[in-house]
Amino acid sequence: MNKSTFALKGNIFYTPTPNQLVIHPQSYLVCENGLVAGIFEQLPEQYTNIPVEDHGNRLILPGLVDLHVHASQYAYRGLGMDMELLQWLESNAFPEESKFADLDYAKQAYSLFTQQLTESATTRACIFATLHRPATLLLTQLLEESGMRCYVGKVNMDRNCPDILQETTEESLAETRRWLEESKQFTKNKPMLTPRFTPTCTDELMAGLSQLQKEFNVPFQSHLSENIPEIEWVKELCPGTRFYGEAYSQFDLFGGNCPTVMAHCVWSDADERALMKQNGVFIAHCPQSNMNISSGIAPVKSYLLEGQKVGLGSDVAGGAHLSLFRAMTDAIQCSKLRWRLVDQNTPALTMPEALYMATKGGGELFGKVGSFEPGYAFDAIVMDDSDIPTTRTCNLAERLERVVYLSNGKPHAKYVQGEKLF
Amino acid sequence: MNKSTFALKGNIFYTPTPNQLVIHPQSYLVCENGLVAGIFEQLPEQYTNIPVEDHGNRLILPGLVDLHVHASQYAYRGLGMDMELLQWLESNAFPEESKFADLDYAKQAYSLFTQQLTESATTRACIFATLHRPATLLLTQLLEESGMRCYVGKVNMDRNCPDILQETTEESLAETRRWLEESKQFTKNKPMLTPRFTPTCTDELMAGLSQLQKEFNVPFQSHLSENIPEIEWVKELCPGTRFYGEAYSQFDLFGGNCPTVMAHCVWSDADERALMKQNGVFIAHCPQSNMNISSGIAPVKSYLLEGQKVGLGSDVAGGAHLSLFRAMTDAIQCSKLRWRLVDQNTPALTMPEALYMATKGGGELFGKVGSFEPGYAFDAIVMDDSDIPTTRTCNLAERLERVVYLSNGKPHAKYVQGEKLF
Repeated sequence: MNKSTFALKGNIFYTPTPNQLVIHPQSYLVCENGLVAGIFEQLPEQYTNIPVEDHGNRLILPGLVDLHVHASQYAYRGLGMDMELLQWLESNAFPEESKFADLDYAKQAYSLFTQQLTESATTRACIFATLHRPATLLLTQLLEESGMRCYVGKVNMDRNCPDILQETTEESLAETRRWLEESKQFTKNKPMLTPRFTPTCTDELMAGLSQLQKEFNVPFQSHLSENIPEIEWVKELCPGTRFYGEAYSQFDLFGGNCPTVMAHCVWSDADERALMKQNGVFIAHCPQSNMNISSGIAPVKSYLLEGQKVGLGSDVAGGAHLSLFRAMTDAIQCSKLRWRLVDQNTPALTMPEALYMATKGGGELFGKVGSFEPGYAFDAIVMDDSDIPTTRTCNLAERLERVVYLSNGKPHAKYVQGEKLF
Repeated sequence: MNKSTFALKGNIFYTPTPNQLVIHPQSYLVCENGLVAGIFEQLPEQYTNIPVEDHGNRLILPGLVDLHVHASQYAYRGLGMDMELLQWLESNAFPEESKFADLDYAKQAYSLFTQQLTESATTRACIFATLHRPATLLLTQLLEESGMRCYVGKVNMDRNCPDILQETTEESLAETRRWLEESKQFTKNKPMLTPRFTPTCTDELMAGLSQLQKEFNVPFQSHLSENIPEIEWVKELCPGTRFYGEAYSQFDLFGGNCPTVMAHCVWSDADERALMKQNGVFIAHCPQSNMNISSGIAPVKSYLLEGQKVGLGSDVAGGAHLSLFRAMTDAIQCSKLRWRLVDQNTPALTMPEALYMATKGGGELFGKVGSFEPGYAFDAIVMDDSDIPTTRTCNLAERLERVVYLSNGKPHAKYVQGEKLF
């Protein structure tokens, strides 16, 4: 018996598909070599001697996956929420991000972010850092020490930025290459190409990133069709494209052989959606950010129904909360408003769909992640709902709903790829 | 010097108007006989010997006012959030409310509600109980012991309800009269007439309640124009009315000499709005409930601009959260979506407007409540933001914003009418 074999016992939940909430009351979730071996009501003979962590009546869920979060914006989450995207970038995001040229500040800020992310229910994340290579590597080092398994991106931006936060195209590409090389030291946390978005990236930069993507075989993330003034700006900047996504796809940076996460997709038109689906682009739905920055409500239910790959993002600090449970409730609530105010032919999201997006939907970017089906990474969180008082007896599905709506979002125990973080 | 004279020291915030956030850094808020005597940078001579509670760098705000909350639904907040209003009433609200015929259950449930409300930042609330007189009096007794100062309503419903939760008209009126008499024992918490809403109340019942309102001179609360199928139903039930509000106003139960809170007003038309304004009806805006039950987004910014009286409601359990800080962020976020998706001529709510609604806007129902202007009730909460970590130095307005978006909603200290609750 390998000593990395063990079991958690409790009430086990997962969503193999968007419509299916599977619940195993009082069962054993077995881990072998960092992967899920199976779920059992009674431990089979070959597992009878493995260590069992008994979580009693607690809830065991797949770790949550945050497909879009800005580590460098954590310091001002919940601030300046009275602006639209472009103004907010100028006033909030850029001045804060410029501080990460100072490695001492970066250490302070990224230590806080890493601590808070580690204490949360999130086990995997796609993270924007800043354009600063040393600070980005420092963040990756901190995540590596925490046990989290994330993608981390050094940001590229070589136009339309304040001087203090702008690279030349050559610098940007040279620093990116060096960062990709230096990132090879990490085993759990990996680099992800991260041009901020089209307005801050020249065609030359994008072409260079495309070469690096092929050479290093790394995934890619950026922003897409978030906010109406932004989309109009991209149209002016890229007169040869039919839709925003082509600003990326013309450089082979839009799914297919380039695993891609596009944040937001609030206003993607039919052509953009068709290409996303064809290429298997992951959509990072960030409902709270889309409210806070007055972007709108993405048609996420339709995305799920048409077979797009969809996960959830906190988008701190466009979103104020790191908790993906909050993102789940935000997504459901926004989908109800969308049904009521925009499109009564498309129903609201359900709780299983929200959990699916927060787990397997985004998890698939990382491989077999986000489910408790055999062979999936053993990413698990244990939620204790005993501090959510009620005088009602709730069944297990109801207890899950209450954890999502009402818990403080912090798990009682957390595992990533079979490793216990706490 | 009266011994009920004392001061709190700290950073003091209030909103005398929707557009004006007043901040007094490191100042003294003086209480005399339960009322605000003034705010001072240095204590004037007549106060030099009064007790001072020094809250250091903490934030001192007016207590928050919850204009609409169902105490009897607290047990299932965060549950069954996949239904519209009428279905949700049948499946969730009515079965739970029927349990309050049992005074033992009522004691358990209302003790929990009272404890949670007391620990929250809310100092005043307009509360729906159930139709059960003994349980409603018990709730009022519990609130009285807690130090909270609320309006509590025995619910009336004599049609279109499950048998287990329906009164005859005669019973309903007789029990209401008896409840109003018995409520005279309480000094801090007062009764408020509470027909559930038009679909569950006959004209005879409403006429009888109107007589009781005049006889006992008590305020009045109900629901108005919340959800489209509900509004259509009211049209069928009240063929003689031009708009929903007339179902109340035809019985003199819609402001004027009858202080009135109408919950929701999501779909109020121009005539209804004109009458609300003319009669000074208080609108209880409940944004989270309006999302959860798919009702829509009330035009609250327009209500403020046109001079309506507007406060906020948690509407537990249509809303899942008792925190009015959460209601403030929900209100702002929904107003941004409304601007984006419905009406680009009406801008989003600001933080001062949200704080105003949560304090003075709703507080005016209770008299001079919800501000720190001299003569206002000394309702104060002290918020400690030291557990919201950041690497940024925030000014006081920013710290307020972070408390609203990011705190757990529980004050460090709380006063109602000069009485310290904790």
